[in-house]
Amino acid sequence: MKRLVALDWGTSSLRGALLDDQGRVLQEKSSPQGILSVTAGGFPALFQHQFGGWMEVAGTLCLIAGMAGSRQGWREAPYCPCPAGLAEVAARLLWLEPGRIALVPGFSTEEDGVPDVMRGEEAQVFGALELLGLQDAQLVLPGTHSKWVQVRGGRIERFRSFMTGEFYALLRQHSILARTLPEADGELDAPAFEQGLAQARASASLLHAAFSVRTLALFERMPPAAMPSYLSGLVIGEELRTQALAPGEDPVVVIGSDTLTARYRLALESQGIAVQTVGSQASARGLWAIARQLKEFA
Amino acid sequence: MKRLVALDWGTSSLRGALLDDQGRVLQEKSSPQGILSVTAGGFPALFQHQFGGWMEVAGTLCLIAGMAGSRQGWREAPYCPCPAGLAEVAARLLWLEPGRIALVPGFSTEEDGVPDVMRGEEAQVFGALELLGLQDAQLVLPGTHSKWVQVRGGRIERFRSFMTGEFYALLRQHSILARTLPEADGELDAPAFEQGLAQARASASLLHAAFSVRTLALFERMPPAAMPSYLSGLVIGEELRTQALAPGEDPVVVIGSDTLTARYRLALESQGIAVQTVGSQASARGLWAIARQLKEFA
Repeated sequence: MKRLVALDWGTSSLRGALLDDQGRVLQEKSSPQGILSVTAGGFPALFQHQFGGWMEVAGTLCLIAGMAGSRQGWREAPYCPCPAGLAEVAARLLWLEPGRIALVPGFSTEEDGVPDVMRGEEAQVFGALELLGLQDAQLVLPGTHSKWVQVRGGRIERFRSFMTGEFYALLRQHSILARTLPEADGELDAPAFEQGLAQARASASLLHAAFSVRTLALFERMPPAAMPSYLSGLVIGEELRTQALAPGEDPVVVIGSDTLTARYRLALESQGIAVQTVGSQASARGLWAIARQLKEFA
Repeated sequence: MKRLVALDWGTSSLRGALLDDQGRVLQEKSSPQGILSVTAGGFPALFQHQFGGWMEVAGTLCLIAGMAGSRQGWREAPYCPCPAGLAEVAARLLWLEPGRIALVPGFSTEEDGVPDVMRGEEAQVFGALELLGLQDAQLVLPGTHSKWVQVRGGRIERFRSFMTGEFYALLRQHSILARTLPEADGELDAPAFEQGLAQARASASLLHAAFSVRTLALFERMPPAAMPSYLSGLVIGEELRTQALAPGEDPVVVIGSDTLTARYRLALESQGIAVQTVGSQASARGLWAIARQLKEFA
């Protein structure tokens, strides 16, 4: 019997799932032991400690996606250039123990002479395609550095990063706007969020639109408690403004936590764009799809 | 004989000039005593200490522009709504001592249901118009919060703020990009700056373009020493991208320090846009133009 240990080892978290030969999740575990918390050379011992038990059964394969394959991780797995699909990824696995433990390469692309990269999101994309039975899709993975991914014929054609979550945090915590914002974000204020989306659409740049957080406060046009939702609408709206989206096309696939996917659903649907959402199980499913490419595992 | 004490009292600096009845600057002084360094109620004493000597001559008028007229300043001078020119400003001076010391109101405007404001820049705009003999102009005042100002028939019709300088500082100091940037900015690297401008034009959003600072470093496509200039080009390029600028039109008037105006000149001229620059003397000249509206002073 074949089993897969599927790891998403990111900057600040480590999530693992044990899957059977049908791709069913048998067990899951997660910890805050992201790569930033691991000392150089400490990866094998931590891996053994956390997943040694799951790996004891003969024929168990482990695939590791995410920043564990970066220069600061376990070992550097060179990027897989776009366009590429499951077959290319499987051929480029970086084996830590031949046939047993491998790092999944991140993806790179190039546009206007400038590279772009992702690590870990590719596994989620392949998982979402599997779960939804899609070969062609536009997907978004919201977060600190959101990724917009174009898939055709099951292959990632190109993608773009947007520093949306990081800009929100910078403006929220370190800018002049922080002075008029309450300490905690609180629950989403949907009307304020939608007002932020509309303002982002009307404005040609976040450089200008962000200043409205200050002036709306100055003229007491918006209660401080609604301001974080408004700012969230501004940055997510800026991200959406630059996408080629049209009502009536295939749904945009949004992959991520419930909180973030809910905001993107609200934002996209308010523009008449259909949405499908996929949660955090996507990564394990994507790794399982990669594993199925290996003749030892298929 | 009439004399004018022209003050630009901002957040972090206080600049004063003594002008004769022809508008010639007789003396200048500046200090880091911006309004943030003044305790509540401390404005009259500081004013007397710094400018009491200049004010002793009978018939001396003092006009104060900038954040001294804000809620956190000496007293709050309500904004003058656009469109407005010298006459409206003169009629809306907030007199601290009748006929002797007045705060100059900042300007407000409104677009898409959102207000915008400036304080102090209006004096520089009126000064630049005087110095250049213009009645119609597009002006930019680069800085932490850059202002783009439209003037017609000597009146400020509308303007927009851009948080360009602040975004630069946030990305430079607090974002993930800070890790790959050198500690000091160093001299401007013109080719890297122009590469940033070009990238900003090619990209639809700074949210995406800013990530290229990280990927260019990752792939060692740009030396770290050139990165601050590249990032400066990205944010200034983003600001310019959203302006309605066309080669062959009247020059854009850039008001500010030599360092900043040089960068905007480079950026605008690389797009075929003609530029005129005006330095820090603009504020005093603008206050003198406002003073001339008063029958006691004209």
